Amino acid sequence: MTRLDETATGVFTIAATPFLPDGALDLNSIDRMVDFYAEKGATGLTILGMMGEAGKLSADESVSVIRRVVSRTDMPVVVGVSAPGLAAIGALARAAVDLGAAGVMVAPPWTLKTDGQIVSYFHDVAEALGDIPFVLQDFPLATSVVMPVDAILKIVADCPTCVMLKHEDWPGLDKISSLRAASDAGARRISILCGNAGLFLPEELARGADGAMTGFAYPEMMAEVVAAHRAGERERAMDIFDAYLPLVRYESQPGLGLAVRKYVLARRGAIAHDTLRKPGKGLTSASVAEVERLMARLDRRLKTL
Amino acid sequence: MTRLDETATGVFTIAATPFLPDGALDLNSIDRMVDFYAEKGATGLTILGMMGEAGKLSADESVSVIRRVVSRTDMPVVVGVSAPGLAAIGALARAAVDLGAAGVMVAPPWTLKTDGQIVSYFHDVAEALGDIPFVLQDFPLATSVVMPVDAILKIVADCPTCVMLKHEDWPGLDKISSLRAASDAGARRISILCGNAGLFLPEELARGADGAMTGFAYPEMMAEVVAAHRAGERERAMDIFDAYLPLVRYESQPGLGLAVRKYVLARRGAIAHDTLRKPGKGLTSASVAEVERLMARLDRRLKTL
Amino acid sequence: MTRLDETATGVFTIAATPFLPDGALDLNSIDRMVDFYAEKGATGLTILGMMGEAGKLSADESVSVIRRVVSRTDMPVVVGVSAPGLAAIGALARAAVDLGAAGVMVAPPWTLKTDGQIVSYFHDVAEALGDIPFVLQDFPLATSVVMPVDAILKIVADCPTCVMLKHEDWPGLDKISSLRAASDAGARRISILCGNAGLFLPEELARGADGAMTGFAYPEMMAEVVAAHRAGERERAMDIFDAYLPLVRYESQPGLGLAVRKYVLARRGAIAHDTLRKPGKGLTSASVAEVERLMARLDRRLKTL
Amino acid sequence: MTRLDETATGVFTIAATPFLPDGALDLNSIDRMVDFYAEKGATGLTILGMMGEAGKLSADESVSVIRRVVSRTDMPVVVGVSAPGLAAIGALARAAVDLGAAGVMVAPPWTLKTDGQIVSYFHDVAEALGDIPFVLQDFPLATSVVMPVDAILKIVADCPTCVMLKHEDWPGLDKISSLRAASDAGARRISILCGNAGLFLPEELARGADGAMTGFAYPEMMAEVVAAHRAGERERAMDIFDAYLPLVRYESQPGLGLAVRKYVLARRGAIAHDTLRKPGKGLTSASVAEVERLMARLDRRLKTL
Repeated sequence: MTRLDETATGVFTIAATPFLPDGALDLNSIDRMVDFYAEKGATGLTILGMMGEAGKLSADESVSVIRRVVSRTDMPVVVGVSAPGLAAIGALARAAVDLGAAGVMVAPPWTLKTDGQIVSYFHDVAEALGDIPFVLQDFPLATSVVMPVDAILKIVADCPTCVMLKHEDWPGLDKISSLRAASDAGARRISILCGNAGLFLPEELARGADGAMTGFAYPEMMAEVVAAHRAGERERAMDIFDAYLPLVRYESQPGLGLAVRKYVLARRGAIAHDTLRKPGKGLTSASVAEVERLMARLDRRLKTL
Repeated sequence: MTRLDETATGVFTIAATPFLPDGALDLNSIDRMVDFYAEKGATGLTILGMMGEAGKLSADESVSVIRRVVSRTDMPVVVGVSAPGLAAIGALARAAVDLGAAGVMVAPPWTLKTDGQIVSYFHDVAEALGDIPFVLQDFPLATSVVMPVDAILKIVADCPTCVMLKHEDWPGLDKISSLRAASDAGARRISILCGNAGLFLPEELARGADGAMTGFAYPEMMAEVVAAHRAGERERAMDIFDAYLPLVRYESQPGLGLAVRKYVLARRGAIAHDTLRKPGKGLTSASVAEVERLMARLDRRLKTL
Repeated sequence: MTRLDETATGVFTIAATPFLPDGALDLNSIDRMVDFYAEKGATGLTILGMMGEAGKLSADESVSVIRRVVSRTDMPVVVGVSAPGLAAIGALARAAVDLGAAGVMVAPPWTLKTDGQIVSYFHDVAEALGDIPFVLQDFPLATSVVMPVDAILKIVADCPTCVMLKHEDWPGLDKISSLRAASDAGARRISILCGNAGLFLPEELARGADGAMTGFAYPEMMAEVVAAHRAGERERAMDIFDAYLPLVRYESQPGLGLAVRKYVLARRGAIAHDTLRKPGKGLTSASVAEVERLMARLDRRLKTL
Repeated sequence: MTRLDETATGVFTIAATPFLPDGALDLNSIDRMVDFYAEKGATGLTILGMMGEAGKLSADESVSVIRRVVSRTDMPVVVGVSAPGLAAIGALARAAVDLGAAGVMVAPPWTLKTDGQIVSYFHDVAEALGDIPFVLQDFPLATSVVMPVDAILKIVADCPTCVMLKHEDWPGLDKISSLRAASDAGARRISILCGNAGLFLPEELARGADGAMTGFAYPEMMAEVVAAHRAGERERAMDIFDAYLPLVRYESQPGLGLAVRKYVLARRGAIAHDTLRKPGKGLTSASVAEVERLMARLDRRLKTL
């Protein structure tokens, strides 16, 4: 499989990891889910991220998931390999690429504080990864690590294998503008795909992002917004976005979001069960009612677009 | 003025503190802003909160703001009095009530960690406040203090002057349900007004909240959603909400939100200038363009409702 | 090997993981180090803790370390198994016990905030571990999780396999007193071994701790202090402690402590090299000079005891 | 009174704020305490710091404390003015200097994350202070803000009124070396006085610090260690230090330290009562017994020096 590089664009869906009701891996659902994402417009997949409940898998299970996903699709697959230490990061990354992954994604550990610590950490990561391309995950809300623009640019300058930023700083629109201004001024331009549940996708694209990398359970929204944006139809991009926004908003709740997404994916037939592994919990009945109502309202609104 | 109590409902707008371009207090704009909030459906005001840039005012300025607001309106006014120590909290609270405020609001300091520390802190706060009614501010994203339902119920049980929860935990819908289940089962029922920029207002009301306490620059949205909800018109409540949601979402960006609100308030004529005091910053031109676009789209959409 | 239980006492030395200058595991040094610890009075060992650079090892390396240590000694061996997810915790714990470890140690992840979250997490841990006895690691300075006495007692009450507390809250002396008062009043009494670099060992023993679990590079200090304390010679226990205190203090510096310990262990012949794996760093020459001076002063002072 | 400048050396004792048993300010004890500090070798005083329970005083009380201290001594007095906003910082600083203080001290708010945010904050502080000299307080354990050497040097370069670093990073010895290497290479050399309860004072002086700024209740220790160090008697400096170290260590416990210091100050006759204001708590009887034992052992050991 080809390696991930700076030209990546479009929608890299953050994939869930499907489980059976008893908590075992549901490998059959992986096939169905991968097909679903492709049909709905994904151009790539990111697996074993936070949303993929990566931390809850054993090492063997992680390999099983990678193998199954990669064997099902020709889309580039990015594998989350964040771990407490460089040895584990390097080992999982090599396994992933050997199985056919296009690249890996690494988030900073919560203990990093200063700009210098952040840059130094990713120097070590890049060294541990060798020639494997990696995505820098910038997600302060989850990691508590705030990465200034200067630190990101230093990593990009020093580490040629850093080919993409998964952007989910919040607020982060001016950060995209600053990064693009820097690449206009000569810095290496890397791909920027945006997370944050898709909550700011139209503005992110207008600021210079190349697409989305998030797990919203209607990937077609991201695909259509990106397509409309590229076609220069910015009001139409916003119209599509607005229709889905009430549900995007609901899914953006930290912690709860994954349960919502699995519920919706199961309702849409993409996976068989909405099971989360412990300590994750399913939705309360009140939340289920709210999600159902939002899905029904979405259906009605899509008919008016 | 009457004291705040557990029956408070509706929309308590979090008020900005207007400044002149040179950073001085703009007392004339306070009058205009208070009138604006009242015209747009506010049933109360909350001043000197985080959004009110309270920390940036000197003690004398705080008193000036309280006096001006209270003298302009008959609505109940809640004054944010969070401070590093109990003496300062008590002193500002007494000054506020003497000037005519209906109650005060207190957020926990970031250093609190355990349930017991949180409960103990509010015991001390209640003692320092004497008979002054207070609002418990539950805003983990800003304070980093997570208050479990049990801790809140203990504070409510132990402190009769705790009459309201400013709810902005996130995700927090099930928390409202749990608190309401507890009051159904015999706990004292206090008022719950919701923050979080209004991003979950329809669901919050359905879960048992009594209204909103947030600073969205179109307070009429909150007023209309609350009114529709009370009238049993829940789909209509959601329709109104959805129309404003793109802008609510944009304003919900931490840090940036206040600059957006002041910009919109100035554009709507509620205050003369969108000045923030240092270290606050105004909007970049790219952000201004985004806000203007969202305001224009809102105008068009409101015509279709 | 026998399983760890509530009666454990004495000195469980936190063992370093020795590396060769190129960063490879130095298995030969493991034998020497284990012998050294035993000669100096250790009654047990704790391996793959934070000080053991556990996070920097691959899964295979972790197993190699466990095997080598367990095969070299009859002392009970506790294995640190903290990991981002329950599956990894359970898998490593079973591997450890199968190799002959006496029990495992688990620290809470930094994301836990409330008392309820902490208790619930260890319920899940206990379930994942099955019948494997575990040590609850209470180390707020490193984990940022503050565990109140009530939460610890709840875990002890609910999880019979929780047989030991590794106590390194700071300040934590009154916590030991509270836990012992609770067991005097009927709660199950578990073993309490203390960390915090040994900085409060005499007081901890007087408050009811059963010994030490820390990695100070002169384990004989802990052994002698514990022995003197048990013999009722409390002033003598303090005299011994005071002699080592300047070096204990120096080793207690967070982050730097491990490099100091490896340096001293190498100087004492317990391991061949003081190498740390990245991103760990060795001592600066100024630090080396300070350590050497403290070691020389210690030698002189021991002669006067 | 003369202004604080970069040449400050010696021991600036962090002063307690004495209270009567009912919690009221004990102004008479202030006189006695100031005299005590002077007799024991202090060359300056720092008041209204964290240890001074500054956050628990009303604005009027703060002014009373400043006035009383300044009127009692010719030593330079530094006033802690950290506050949530720049207006309050500026107002208290001007009041302090008008009353005769030599300078002020400012710690960063816990919300600062990146190097750039830290530098920018102190730019704003310096502007708000005008020509008032200030001490930069670098205390990550209490503020959670980690200040890299580069950020400190940038503040020193940009703000001529930053004349002193209160150093209590931990571990921080190499930081002192780096800062002194920078001033040797041309950066403006500011005074560095060290906190951290005095736990590393001999090493700090050897690395280039100019003295101590901490509240250990035996200020004569710091004075004698500094004097011996300056006289080139480094082993003697360490001998003195070692004698006090068991108590220094006990006082260094976060949170508890202040209660220990007030207890010892009261026992030594420096203040009338060891009262802390809420939510501070006094020592448990077990802690009192531990402190008394350490004081008795210190007395015996001092006779052998």
